[in-house]
Amino acid sequence: MEQQANMKPYVIGLDLGGTNSVFGIVDSRGEIKATTAIKTQPYQNVDDYVDAAIEALQVIIEQVGGIEKIKAMGIGAPNGNFYNGTIEFAPNLSWGRDGVVPLAKMFSERLGIPVALTNDANAAAIGEMTYGVARGMKNFIVITLGTGVGSGIVINGQLVYGCDGFAGELGHTIIRRENGRPCGCGRSGCLECYCSATGVARTAREFLETSNEPSLLRDMAPEDITSLDVSIAAGKGDALAKRVYEFTGLMLGEACADFAAFSSPEAFIFFGGLTKAGDLLMDPIKRGYNAHILKIFKDKAQFLISGLDGSSAAVLGASAIGWEIQE
Amino acid sequence: MEQQANMKPYVIGLDLGGTNSVFGIVDSRGEIKATTAIKTQPYQNVDDYVDAAIEALQVIIEQVGGIEKIKAMGIGAPNGNFYNGTIEFAPNLSWGRDGVVPLAKMFSERLGIPVALTNDANAAAIGEMTYGVARGMKNFIVITLGTGVGSGIVINGQLVYGCDGFAGELGHTIIRRENGRPCGCGRSGCLECYCSATGVARTAREFLETSNEPSLLRDMAPEDITSLDVSIAAGKGDALAKRVYEFTGLMLGEACADFAAFSSPEAFIFFGGLTKAGDLLMDPIKRGYNAHILKIFKDKAQFLISGLDGSSAAVLGASAIGWEIQE
Repeated sequence: MEQQANMKPYVIGLDLGGTNSVFGIVDSRGEIKATTAIKTQPYQNVDDYVDAAIEALQVIIEQVGGIEKIKAMGIGAPNGNFYNGTIEFAPNLSWGRDGVVPLAKMFSERLGIPVALTNDANAAAIGEMTYGVARGMKNFIVITLGTGVGSGIVINGQLVYGCDGFAGELGHTIIRRENGRPCGCGRSGCLECYCSATGVARTAREFLETSNEPSLLRDMAPEDITSLDVSIAAGKGDALAKRVYEFTGLMLGEACADFAAFSSPEAFIFFGGLTKAGDLLMDPIKRGYNAHILKIFKDKAQFLISGLDGSSAAVLGASAIGWEIQE
Repeated sequence: MEQQANMKPYVIGLDLGGTNSVFGIVDSRGEIKATTAIKTQPYQNVDDYVDAAIEALQVIIEQVGGIEKIKAMGIGAPNGNFYNGTIEFAPNLSWGRDGVVPLAKMFSERLGIPVALTNDANAAAIGEMTYGVARGMKNFIVITLGTGVGSGIVINGQLVYGCDGFAGELGHTIIRRENGRPCGCGRSGCLECYCSATGVARTAREFLETSNEPSLLRDMAPEDITSLDVSIAAGKGDALAKRVYEFTGLMLGEACADFAAFSSPEAFIFFGGLTKAGDLLMDPIKRGYNAHILKIFKDKAQFLISGLDGSSAAVLGASAIGWEIQE
């Protein structure tokens, strides 16, 4: 076993996003040996996409010594189903919107290696367990704070996929049951409407609209405000912008208190763009949690920011899925 | 292995409740071969309780052929911690209120067999998997509807204990964040305040107080109304009583929709006194769930009532913990 592992020291990771598809060849310590990328969207169909991906991949595969050095491939993709290796009805993918795409099988047939696929938040959770801050942990929850809010849940050292491969949609638990914000999922009051990057911008616009408080954010057109602008303004001491992060963090902490009642994790790990705000976000998360947590769980969970290197975190996460494949 | 199993064909189950402690000796098909009981409370300390328990147990152990026929013992108890085999700060136990009681170890030393302990809802979940409606299922949630609301969560065929042994407190997730009913846990708006037997009685009193609608329940003193009275009145066609179950079921279904976003179970299994109301409760649960479930999970989960024989369900659940012990 050990010898075989040495013979095939690498896995391929693919972070399949709505805009870019980033590939990395990664060793068991999480070092990226070679990387490349293609655009995700400008393809008529998935066959053309896979053709372009294989062409780009060939170059970096040769760089590391050929396909015989590579054990497996892991893909993190929106609406990815681990059980079937498929992408299912992904609204943001031109070639994946209307059906079930067997992407893992397609790559596996072309490369001749095992390929596993899951959604990006699950990939992040496996990535934290393999290379990041969750090494050695058996029970933790990764919450991804990007355009949306995703989650990857690990229990007894295993990722939770549920009966259908789609478990772990904590961004779509309901945090406001009355007068909740409408959500892209067709319901309202989902955590994602408040605690994603777009949720933060939405909160900033609401706060600006409902007060006359001076704020650096008033220099911008409201529709142009992003979570990054709010974070920059808060960093400059802008009181309204600080309250936006306070509101966001408190709500996230409150939600985590409910998640603890489910799986009592040893850590909540936050991943993605919003975590760049650092303590501005993490402090109210902890306060919100402590204010709402059931006594029996008090002071048991840590609150951590992802240990994966920001720019390559998603590729590392995807690659980690490759190490998990049981042959 | 097979032979050894035949040599020790039984396990002991102990359903340790606030009032009674019921013991059963159970075979691998869930048939109870012998049973006995003692009162739980009238003991100065846990040593006296264990003495009385062992004395009662000796009689039924002899009935089935002696201790060498018994593989293990399982205990379902309030505030039971599976990892440590302890009962921790159980408010309703005179001898377990103020500390950590190593009950599994105490029974194991006295009987000379392995003993495992968990809380009653977890015991119910293992019981359903071993003898009940969850046989063959890998991902399901048992929700116990008694004086409180408890839960036992199974993921990938394993019970979820979390980092501390106390995971699965779904009765203490928050279902009403604004103006929620005060809960015994010190917070407010917990699912348990609405969907337990006491919650149903509370709802009935609220409905009676806030309307002049005629109801059979008006013949009783409000403080005497129990969930059973509400169920009987509803069975007689009482409109207000029916609305109480409608309210309860819709709320439970709404909560289950959030639980599905966590672990995407193939079934929700309801256990305990309130389930005697049958469709009166189960129909609104399903409607509440369907109205709130994220599209991706629609029509994936079954809604079932416990398959364990009512009067002995808790003993069967506890005994099932015994079969799970890995020697």
